[in-house]
Amino acid sequence: MHRWRALEHLTDNQPHGEPTMIQVSESKGVQAQSLLASYKAVRGATAEITRGLSAEDQMVQSTPDASPIKWHQAHTSWFFETFVLRQFLPEYVEFHADFHWLFNSYYVSLGDEIPEKKLRASFSRPSLEMILEFRAHVDAAMERLLAGGVEEEAIRRIVLGLNHEQQHQELALTDLKNAFFTNPLHPAYRDIVVTESEAGPLTWSKFPGGLQEIGYPLKASDPMDFSFDNETPRHKVYLEPYSLANRMISCREYLEFMADDAYDRAEFWLSEGWSAVESEGWRAPLYWQRDAADATGWKVFTLSGYRGLSELLDTPVCHVSFFEADAFARWSGCRLPTEAEWETAAAPFTLDGNLWDVGVFHPAAAGTGEGLQQMIGDCWEWTASPYTGYPGYKPLPGALGEYNGKFMSSQMILRGGSCVTPASHMRVTYRNFFQSATRWQFSGIRLAK
Amino acid sequence: MHRWRALEHLTDNQPHGEPTMIQVSESKGVQAQSLLASYKAVRGATAEITRGLSAEDQMVQSTPDASPIKWHQAHTSWFFETFVLRQFLPEYVEFHADFHWLFNSYYVSLGDEIPEKKLRASFSRPSLEMILEFRAHVDAAMERLLAGGVEEEAIRRIVLGLNHEQQHQELALTDLKNAFFTNPLHPAYRDIVVTESEAGPLTWSKFPGGLQEIGYPLKASDPMDFSFDNETPRHKVYLEPYSLANRMISCREYLEFMADDAYDRAEFWLSEGWSAVESEGWRAPLYWQRDAADATGWKVFTLSGYRGLSELLDTPVCHVSFFEADAFARWSGCRLPTEAEWETAAAPFTLDGNLWDVGVFHPAAAGTGEGLQQMIGDCWEWTASPYTGYPGYKPLPGALGEYNGKFMSSQMILRGGSCVTPASHMRVTYRNFFQSATRWQFSGIRLAK
Amino acid sequence: MHRWRALEHLTDNQPHGEPTMIQVSESKGVQAQSLLASYKAVRGATAEITRGLSAEDQMVQSTPDASPIKWHQAHTSWFFETFVLRQFLPEYVEFHADFHWLFNSYYVSLGDEIPEKKLRASFSRPSLEMILEFRAHVDAAMERLLAGGVEEEAIRRIVLGLNHEQQHQELALTDLKNAFFTNPLHPAYRDIVVTESEAGPLTWSKFPGGLQEIGYPLKASDPMDFSFDNETPRHKVYLEPYSLANRMISCREYLEFMADDAYDRAEFWLSEGWSAVESEGWRAPLYWQRDAADATGWKVFTLSGYRGLSELLDTPVCHVSFFEADAFARWSGCRLPTEAEWETAAAPFTLDGNLWDVGVFHPAAAGTGEGLQQMIGDCWEWTASPYTGYPGYKPLPGALGEYNGKFMSSQMILRGGSCVTPASHMRVTYRNFFQSATRWQFSGIRLAK
Amino acid sequence: MHRWRALEHLTDNQPHGEPTMIQVSESKGVQAQSLLASYKAVRGATAEITRGLSAEDQMVQSTPDASPIKWHQAHTSWFFETFVLRQFLPEYVEFHADFHWLFNSYYVSLGDEIPEKKLRASFSRPSLEMILEFRAHVDAAMERLLAGGVEEEAIRRIVLGLNHEQQHQELALTDLKNAFFTNPLHPAYRDIVVTESEAGPLTWSKFPGGLQEIGYPLKASDPMDFSFDNETPRHKVYLEPYSLANRMISCREYLEFMADDAYDRAEFWLSEGWSAVESEGWRAPLYWQRDAADATGWKVFTLSGYRGLSELLDTPVCHVSFFEADAFARWSGCRLPTEAEWETAAAPFTLDGNLWDVGVFHPAAAGTGEGLQQMIGDCWEWTASPYTGYPGYKPLPGALGEYNGKFMSSQMILRGGSCVTPASHMRVTYRNFFQSATRWQFSGIRLAK
Repeated sequence: MHRWRALEHLTDNQPHGEPTMIQVSESKGVQAQSLLASYKAVRGATAEITRGLSAEDQMVQSTPDASPIKWHQAHTSWFFETFVLRQFLPEYVEFHADFHWLFNSYYVSLGDEIPEKKLRASFSRPSLEMILEFRAHVDAAMERLLAGGVEEEAIRRIVLGLNHEQQHQELALTDLKNAFFTNPLHPAYRDIVVTESEAGPLTWSKFPGGLQEIGYPLKASDPMDFSFDNETPRHKVYLEPYSLANRMISCREYLEFMADDAYDRAEFWLSEGWSAVESEGWRAPLYWQRDAADATGWKVFTLSGYRGLSELLDTPVCHVSFFEADAFARWSGCRLPTEAEWETAAAPFTLDGNLWDVGVFHPAAAGTGEGLQQMIGDCWEWTASPYTGYPGYKPLPGALGEYNGKFMSSQMILRGGSCVTPASHMRVTYRNFFQSATRWQFSGIRLAK
Repeated sequence: MHRWRALEHLTDNQPHGEPTMIQVSESKGVQAQSLLASYKAVRGATAEITRGLSAEDQMVQSTPDASPIKWHQAHTSWFFETFVLRQFLPEYVEFHADFHWLFNSYYVSLGDEIPEKKLRASFSRPSLEMILEFRAHVDAAMERLLAGGVEEEAIRRIVLGLNHEQQHQELALTDLKNAFFTNPLHPAYRDIVVTESEAGPLTWSKFPGGLQEIGYPLKASDPMDFSFDNETPRHKVYLEPYSLANRMISCREYLEFMADDAYDRAEFWLSEGWSAVESEGWRAPLYWQRDAADATGWKVFTLSGYRGLSELLDTPVCHVSFFEADAFARWSGCRLPTEAEWETAAAPFTLDGNLWDVGVFHPAAAGTGEGLQQMIGDCWEWTASPYTGYPGYKPLPGALGEYNGKFMSSQMILRGGSCVTPASHMRVTYRNFFQSATRWQFSGIRLAK
Repeated sequence: MHRWRALEHLTDNQPHGEPTMIQVSESKGVQAQSLLASYKAVRGATAEITRGLSAEDQMVQSTPDASPIKWHQAHTSWFFETFVLRQFLPEYVEFHADFHWLFNSYYVSLGDEIPEKKLRASFSRPSLEMILEFRAHVDAAMERLLAGGVEEEAIRRIVLGLNHEQQHQELALTDLKNAFFTNPLHPAYRDIVVTESEAGPLTWSKFPGGLQEIGYPLKASDPMDFSFDNETPRHKVYLEPYSLANRMISCREYLEFMADDAYDRAEFWLSEGWSAVESEGWRAPLYWQRDAADATGWKVFTLSGYRGLSELLDTPVCHVSFFEADAFARWSGCRLPTEAEWETAAAPFTLDGNLWDVGVFHPAAAGTGEGLQQMIGDCWEWTASPYTGYPGYKPLPGALGEYNGKFMSSQMILRGGSCVTPASHMRVTYRNFFQSATRWQFSGIRLAK
Repeated sequence: MHRWRALEHLTDNQPHGEPTMIQVSESKGVQAQSLLASYKAVRGATAEITRGLSAEDQMVQSTPDASPIKWHQAHTSWFFETFVLRQFLPEYVEFHADFHWLFNSYYVSLGDEIPEKKLRASFSRPSLEMILEFRAHVDAAMERLLAGGVEEEAIRRIVLGLNHEQQHQELALTDLKNAFFTNPLHPAYRDIVVTESEAGPLTWSKFPGGLQEIGYPLKASDPMDFSFDNETPRHKVYLEPYSLANRMISCREYLEFMADDAYDRAEFWLSEGWSAVESEGWRAPLYWQRDAADATGWKVFTLSGYRGLSELLDTPVCHVSFFEADAFARWSGCRLPTEAEWETAAAPFTLDGNLWDVGVFHPAAAGTGEGLQQMIGDCWEWTASPYTGYPGYKPLPGALGEYNGKFMSSQMILRGGSCVTPASHMRVTYRNFFQSATRWQFSGIRLAK
């Protein structure tokens, strides 16, 4: 989750005059119009995501990794107020004097009286009602701003703000799932009927390797072009020939791993992973609960409530840690792909898949077709690659560059997006990263060899 | 806080036929009528206490010691449903099938999937709205029950239930204070103007000691008579002659202690207390914050928001731990009273003082009169007595007796009630107890020598 | 163990001129002669205790509670060098410049570079050889000092120093037992054949209670008279009539408690005790290990190595925590005695029993006689009394009084000495105290009702 | 340190018949003779390293990362007894029945009664004297074995055993430094006069990058050839052009970093590194202590005792964590090299440098010549590469392959050896690895850009 925090820092201290070398190819007006449409679409998605959630629902913080949903709503609006409106809309009047520090994700550093976790847990005020007024206030101002032409720097920041809001949309659903899971009544978020379907057999796609290029080729001249800095620069890597599994590992296959006592056999686990198994008491993926009523003995908590595992056997196993993914791979005599292998294989694909826009909010069974499936969407795929900077990755000077690199230790790369990632937010070059024991993300397994 | 939990256990498993030897002296009808009035008064007090608190406010749990206020509301109603209505009102229909386990304070033991803390933090459902309906449902049924005569056992349980609800009323205000303090906007609960007044000089009242009796003389024959079991039996103690300070220690006096670098001088502290000072970083009572704007350099968070300490110098210092009370006593060349000394001195007093009913919700300055003041109300007074069973205290057979004694280790006795204790809940024999490092209670200091 | 540390502080800062009001009734010379005999006896006991232990054995620190034996040897000598020789033997030349701070039990406070635990663990230098030279150096000087008459203040300090060394003798054996237990080869300290004997049935001795006096009646005028300050003042207590078990609880009886699944039944335990059972995984007393070869299924580590529990069934159960003692009492329908009950009952006894001087170093089975047995020796007996100051206990002015009271929180009183307590160190008024979870001491159970 | 443990596992369960495909090119006799010389040299080095250390010195375990030196001595002998003598010397009689499990580094798994750390801390028995007899017993048997020709499998194991002992030699010195540092008398291990010398200016060596090969080209046919499995297979990597600093960072340069308040400025640190700074209270490298007597304000603990930092300003900074190395690089506007960059640059070098055999046991100032210096020896150099398996790295089947890969998470690669690494143990391809916060190793900094 640290990337999101990183982002805020990056922008918080961004010197205004930075990107002076940009050449604008479109007229500002056209860009503004296009941006306004994007803005409305992204902001509308937040409204759609939070539809039906009470003020109480939006206040829960069920794990230290998570944030209350009303905080996500406020924080993403704070971004536009702070980095866009206060600087590019001269007549802008801020909504509330305290919100400037209150919805900065680091505002606890402004005063030492309140530890961060407690703060969010005590967040009954400001009320959700007031936060929704704040959103409306910001939206109205943004529409005024985008009614005319806007400066390139404003465009860059708005694009960044929209990507930022999309990250928080994904997080909001991730956090909500945990909140509803830990609620003793286990409510459902949406009532979606997942159509049962059958995954085809696991087959292998071969790739020749050799000298390849990965990373995002950022067009610095286009303020609408966007990637996170950790996706750059595009660079060469040398790959040995390799094969990728055609689809993700299914719950059925994961059950075999469990049935082989894998959670009791140290031989399959990294040393740190085995420690986690023991200290956390892992016996199955997160959100799996024993249920004698189901033929498999398990039920699975989804955003549509509990489902018998029997219904989901062909869907990808989800909410596993890197350690579990790695142990599964070892157990199966395979390994996880590196991110370079993954990206090289995924490069030809269109960004199509079971993403948030599809509306299922749970990984779906692969089809039976030939070739790679499920590369985009369903679950983030753990790779064998620790999160480091690409060769030539240079932290930008000053605060701008201070942050993305800060988390380049003890985290592993995930690729491909999940069923709660907005489609317009995905890129083949997208590098997600979490600590190896993380399970509350929609994270699954693809094998390589 | 453990006593409250203890209570629930005590009653949960209470065999029905227990108190068979009771002789009723009043007619059942008169008792029922009187009980109904008490019932309405106590339940009404809960409504008054929670007036104006939003569903979000009632969901906060800002420290592991605290519970969300909507949980307090539900749990106290669950008590009447479980122990009274389901057994003594034949036609009673329970409000919701899940509430039986949901609002049992130990219900997590029913299933191991969810750690207790998380549970309360995730408590967005059931909503406050539904919980208020539950309260109304229970109230209507209780009125039906008390319309006629009721059995002695029912009377005993209702009396217990009302005392139980009063404990939760005090806790609710204690928890709310912490919740609003940790909220970054620091809202006020009520807007009460505390009239400034001056405390007289600290003087000493002498007591001869000798063979005394303490403890509550419970009339087993009267089902309306009540004390907690740890207040019994009444028994003899031998006391050396002693003196008590005529009033509690004021903030002004506590500032002198602080100004003498007491938080930096190990010599005044118990070894465990010094460890707490260092590990917790204590520099002042809980809820004191530095404030350059006040002449004293401090402001104090109250249920009416922050106040400059200057306004409160003559009020008793509050929210100090036993360790701080003990260190203050040592610094001043005195000591804390034992509970026997306290009770013997307090015995002649009427139960009058700055209690919840007064409506100030903050300790008030002592007057200037002669003799003991502030024995009842303002702040719970730490004593030098560890919490143990009275001589002859016998755990009742079975589950009934299982619990009050369970907490008789590593806790210290407090006496006298506070500004958030309901007046009808107080007794001179009342034994409150908390761990020595506890500060979120309204707890203060009276010296002895 | 904290008392020992307290002691050093008490003396470290003792102003020299303090006890000026003392009248000497004996000639100084006679006292000096008598003291020299005591000195030689106590120092000789240390040599006897450490006989046969290698430098490596004397370096082990197997739990944070323990100290290496060579440190005990040095520290007790440091006491005489620092508080006696440097002040009362003008020509005294100290043995080594660093020893003054090195063997002060608080010397880590002199410099912050080294955490205390590491320090002792790294204590390869000074070598045992050098420490034995230090002891000889101090002994020679003490003999010179005591060759003539000595001042009262010196007498007081020497008496204190000898009591101090006796405390460390007991600790050394306690620590050594833990060291040899945790050594994978489980060596024996001495090879003592424990004669099997049968304990008689558990019977009860009745006591009338009433107004009694407890505490040590210190003769301030006699510099040879001694008790720790926490044993004073002698004072009145009122006791209800009570009964004490005639002997300690045997291993056989404790096995019944275990066989009744007591370690799995929360109902017998204080809440804190149950937490300890769970977090520490207690299933039996410390030093009991499962052993299929013994008929009971257990063997017990003693200072003579492992013994089958079968041989020890009639001996008192030892190395139990207060929580276990309390749970056993609850399980048996009884309770633990208060320290006032214990002392009142023990007052008529001579200080005779299975103490260190007997040479068994393990609790022995009670005899079959009438009346109280095992009051002195065998095991320290946990009481129901938290450690607090006696009524009228006054910390002496200045650093002198700073310490004994420092530990008067969260500790429980034990009475009666153990099989590793030197006989000349015992008093009926002796108040030992440890935290409720402590098990490495020789601590056992006597019931009351 | 985990690699060492890995090694033992690897060998412990090694099936005997494994390397059947080996063709022997030399006569067995010649190999045996050559091996015997190596054996004597390596075993002699252990004797030299432990010369002058008392039994007490060899018993210290001053951090959980460390082991007592007498344990290193026993464990390395256990290796030869277990994997060589018991299998290849038919008449071999083992020295002591318990040593087989006692000196297995995992023997605690054989019985659950004793946590590992305590065990080593309690290791007074067996005595050093007995362990030295064990070593002599093993040496005599090894000489008998190597008097004739030996099987290839025996050769492989002996080679492995010698590499194993060399690892423990380095560890022994690393552990001893910590032991003597934490000893309050801060003894010196050897009294070596470090000649002051001046490091030349920091310059840069450029490398063209491109497609390179790294990793050890193991000759499977030669049983005397050796590398650890994580150094294989040799494989291609693509490198951008890069530059390496000609020498390691000196203490003088590190002081500038400190003087720029680097330990107080989060901007230079990885997020995890900053947490470590705060939680561990780092203000300087390990073994630096403030010292007003030195012009720099610091002294540095070396294996020759404390030295004023003034004497060492030109020597490489040592005992820094990866986090400190990374922060230094960021502060200086550079970065750390990847392991592929390091190995490619180091490939042409001979294995010459300030290694153990030089006898200084402390990093020495670089010379003033042109080109790369200090690549081999002085300090292990932290790289920017997380420890992962090389492309194509395949865990061998069975227990053989179980272990080296187990630690491939959350550790960083170090290259180049240190002043306590035996010269015959080094390879350019050698991959050392430790967790990012490790400081007790001789680890330093080389910059790249």
